[in-house]
Amino acid sequence: MLPHCSALLGGLLGTGILKQGNPLTVHYVMFLPAILGHGTPEQQAEWFGRAWNCEIIGTYAQTELGHGTFLRGLETTATYDERTKEFVLHSPTLTAYKWWPGGLAQTANYCVVMAQLFSKGQCHGIQPFIVQLRDEESHVPMKGITIGDIGNKLGMNGVNNGFLGFDHVRIPRKNMLMKNAKLLEDGTFVKPPSQALTYGTMMFVRVVICRDMAAYLSKAVTIAVRYSAVRRQSHINPDQPEVQVIDHLTQQYKLFPALAKSIIFKLTSDNLWDMYNQVTSELDKGDLERLPELHAIACCLKAITTADAAAGVELCRMACGGHGYMTCSNFYGTYGMVTAACTYEGENTVLLLQTARYLMKAWQQAQRGQELVPTVQYLARFLSSKNRRMDWDDSIGGIVRALQTVAAGKLRLAAEHIEQRQKRGATLEEATNQTSIELARTADAHCRAFLVQSGCEMIEKGCATASPELAKVLRTIYHLYAYDEALKSLGDLLRFTTISESDINRLQAKLEDALTELRPNAVGIVDSFDLPDDVLGSPLGAYDGNVYERLYEEAKKSPLNQEPVNQSFHMYLKPFMKSSL
Amino acid sequence: MLPHCSALLGGLLGTGILKQGNPLTVHYVMFLPAILGHGTPEQQAEWFGRAWNCEIIGTYAQTELGHGTFLRGLETTATYDERTKEFVLHSPTLTAYKWWPGGLAQTANYCVVMAQLFSKGQCHGIQPFIVQLRDEESHVPMKGITIGDIGNKLGMNGVNNGFLGFDHVRIPRKNMLMKNAKLLEDGTFVKPPSQALTYGTMMFVRVVICRDMAAYLSKAVTIAVRYSAVRRQSHINPDQPEVQVIDHLTQQYKLFPALAKSIIFKLTSDNLWDMYNQVTSELDKGDLERLPELHAIACCLKAITTADAAAGVELCRMACGGHGYMTCSNFYGTYGMVTAACTYEGENTVLLLQTARYLMKAWQQAQRGQELVPTVQYLARFLSSKNRRMDWDDSIGGIVRALQTVAAGKLRLAAEHIEQRQKRGATLEEATNQTSIELARTADAHCRAFLVQSGCEMIEKGCATASPELAKVLRTIYHLYAYDEALKSLGDLLRFTTISESDINRLQAKLEDALTELRPNAVGIVDSFDLPDDVLGSPLGAYDGNVYERLYEEAKKSPLNQEPVNQSFHMYLKPFMKSSL
Repeated sequence: MLPHCSALLGGLLGTGILKQGNPLTVHYVMFLPAILGHGTPEQQAEWFGRAWNCEIIGTYAQTELGHGTFLRGLETTATYDERTKEFVLHSPTLTAYKWWPGGLAQTANYCVVMAQLFSKGQCHGIQPFIVQLRDEESHVPMKGITIGDIGNKLGMNGVNNGFLGFDHVRIPRKNMLMKNAKLLEDGTFVKPPSQALTYGTMMFVRVVICRDMAAYLSKAVTIAVRYSAVRRQSHINPDQPEVQVIDHLTQQYKLFPALAKSIIFKLTSDNLWDMYNQVTSELDKGDLERLPELHAIACCLKAITTADAAAGVELCRMACGGHGYMTCSNFYGTYGMVTAACTYEGENTVLLLQTARYLMKAWQQAQRGQELVPTVQYLARFLSSKNRRMDWDDSIGGIVRALQTVAAGKLRLAAEHIEQRQKRGATLEEATNQTSIELARTADAHCRAFLVQSGCEMIEKGCATASPELAKVLRTIYHLYAYDEALKSLGDLLRFTTISESDINRLQAKLEDALTELRPNAVGIVDSFDLPDDVLGSPLGAYDGNVYERLYEEAKKSPLNQEPVNQSFHMYLKPFMKSSL
Repeated sequence: MLPHCSALLGGLLGTGILKQGNPLTVHYVMFLPAILGHGTPEQQAEWFGRAWNCEIIGTYAQTELGHGTFLRGLETTATYDERTKEFVLHSPTLTAYKWWPGGLAQTANYCVVMAQLFSKGQCHGIQPFIVQLRDEESHVPMKGITIGDIGNKLGMNGVNNGFLGFDHVRIPRKNMLMKNAKLLEDGTFVKPPSQALTYGTMMFVRVVICRDMAAYLSKAVTIAVRYSAVRRQSHINPDQPEVQVIDHLTQQYKLFPALAKSIIFKLTSDNLWDMYNQVTSELDKGDLERLPELHAIACCLKAITTADAAAGVELCRMACGGHGYMTCSNFYGTYGMVTAACTYEGENTVLLLQTARYLMKAWQQAQRGQELVPTVQYLARFLSSKNRRMDWDDSIGGIVRALQTVAAGKLRLAAEHIEQRQKRGATLEEATNQTSIELARTADAHCRAFLVQSGCEMIEKGCATASPELAKVLRTIYHLYAYDEALKSLGDLLRFTTISESDINRLQAKLEDALTELRPNAVGIVDSFDLPDDVLGSPLGAYDGNVYERLYEEAKKSPLNQEPVNQSFHMYLKPFMKSSL
């Protein structure tokens, strides 16, 4: 994708211009990549150029009204008719209707449809098909195709998410994207050489999500930090003037960890991007070894960065009091974009359980003394400690090791509980479901240990070339992040390390010191994010700090302020008031 | 207030009819009570009857653009002019503009205005004044009064929150509400006999908020539980059909604690209501002793129930996946109402710090061996234990005592830290600010101990008259609540009690057992809330369970589906696609 396209679709400039999302995002982020990833050279020649030039606009239809996460449950069928060499696309039930694709309702005239392929009476699983949805001249839906808008949503209302039903719609055989799996003319199905290839796009999308989460969070933090420097409330010392609300320690504790997270998430997405490129280049050489590891870390990073960013945006909003509740403050729009990401591209709990499944395998490898890939090497260290609680040490390295020990300790317990449940008669799957709360938490702990390690390493790398003054600020940022994560995991640290009561008090004091140290630099740091007012889109966060003037100007624009007395007074209110009820 | 008014304004029927809030709520909940609470008999005679009959409609203007929580910072002035026996109301700055009062923008023609009273060159603090805002016939704003709508908000868009500026507006002396403080004709200020009287309304409103939070949460839980019983996703055992999502343990862990909370919050608000009435009747006899205790518990209960209800509604929404993100699912509207309550009527962090201030006083009383009021009697027990960690015991009574011990332990630490900081040279106020993270958490712990105790006692009371089968279900509900709260406080329990690794595993198993026990009754319990479909207002939660048909019907109503090709295609999209960009 060209850089300017990427910018227009991304979390900063993109949502600065189109606050409720872009109807072409799915065209660029999923339709075009699907043609590249699943299409043969002939298919790419037929569709990619036209799509790239926007002569046709596509979307990607996978999720159905009745199924999202569980792909095997999708109901749309594509049945091969050997006689005519066509596929018949059909929605056998209402729940088979495609539901959610962006741009589907109004914008797209083509679509990649994921459907259950049937040929010779056999199902060959989900395959991608290109389907023309609307006439290229009139935009009227093609015969047998029902399209509509799914209605208003919490956010992303510029995306025209749509629904799509098929009533025996025929498409030629060449419209099945056959770079991987194939269907021969006679209806013979040919399996793809490797399933692994399809992981690539999913992981790419998750890297993009992590990066976007960092961007959205940096917007919310910028708005809240600037507002908190303008807003004054209460005295700290009674004989002095009201203080900036950012001087209240509780306010710093809301804003600064979110500030640190926005930086850590950005750097971790860069790190993940490097890992992705490395694994992809190994893949091209036929080496699949690190793919499951990358998949596992991408799953949990997507889950944790979306969940933490959503919580962070809300915390920033509420830190701005009532004014944060106003639409014009732009927290809510930002939240709509962020919280959506907790559900799409893999629901977060499901993703954590996928990471946990990988960790269970790694645990077995570790127990067998097999070599472990980098992100789970801490399991070997944990096993060698023979259940002794790890010695607490509040350096950053010590905190990383402690969080890894927590993840390993939880993993051991989850594995034991699954085994116990199996011994009591449960199947492995039942036992796994019965242990799923612990498994999800294990993946969460694994991810947080990775984030602290990766984030701190990435910042420390940057410190090498920074001035001593800047390096000091950068280190305070990752220290704060590490202390905050450690204190939030306190119960687990107490279980799996030797952390003592005085260690806890010391750690709390270190966190508070980090907040105080960041205070004088907070506005400078968010200014360094260099987000223009148009991207922030919030009277609370503008660079000039004229919060109140801007709020008032914004209010005056309300359509309800265009006449001194609204007609509803004469129509309803006055008769009601005069009715002597 | 008459019961039907209360129902129309409340969280269930009220928001069933007016999803974005009622423009008359402030008239009923604040304007009328303000006349009763602050008006003399003559003033009540003049305004209450007309207001009660809705011949005039009022609002209550306290918050300003520049000040909310910190009342002493309000800038609107009411200066007494001895010559004309009038007050001159004035907004000296833009930040002095009243901002947020419900019904102000369009509906109200009268208002109780809180302003800084000046007479004889002296300020006498914030006092209430009745001001006519609009002409009773034409509804045109009175001379010198600027009124407008503050703009769109995250929720409550039916409330017409407004702004209000005064340019030297004159009102007669009789318009100062003088039941408490008075201003004599010659400009002499007479203090009220007791400040305590004004606490009453604030506490009443907080009881109402707790009750509303329970109601909103019960709506969200009903929708999510019913949907989770209809929705199927994934196999647990591979040879069996896809299961209802409510059979996934992680889903139960999202929904059932929220279910328990909606019941516990309801019962606790009943409990608080009883306390309120008892204290009010003592007040009438001149006995103010329990007022600070009630104030302290009401503050933290408002903070915790609003915060937990907001988190619970969001958890329920996200447990419904993508469909929960649709506006028609009605989670978002519900969230808008709930999250607003985290900010209004006392911002939550500020309220927790108020409770903490009370606890600090109680701590000093406890140390001096003075008698303690019921909600803080646990401090004496804690002190008598001489810093020994409490013996863990996982009965409900044991959990309550453990949570109380946690609150007391945190309180002791916070008190010590304040003292240490003072010794290092900080003023008491600075030391308190520097310890405010710990203080807020102490109040949080105090409140959670109260909720578990009060909620479990209230349910146990109900069990006495219930059938054994029903009592069993009711007990599972409060057990789940207590186990969940205990496990969420695990770090603190490890610090302040003897809870061991095997105790933790046992507690986790008990929580999981409670979830499994609740599973067969979950739909029955939410059905017993007896919320009609019109109140739930969600295709996901309707009693008949026809989720998909209702979602589709809802989508078809979208204005974007009224024509097969939107005009934007011809105007913008087609020219763009044909432009060979």
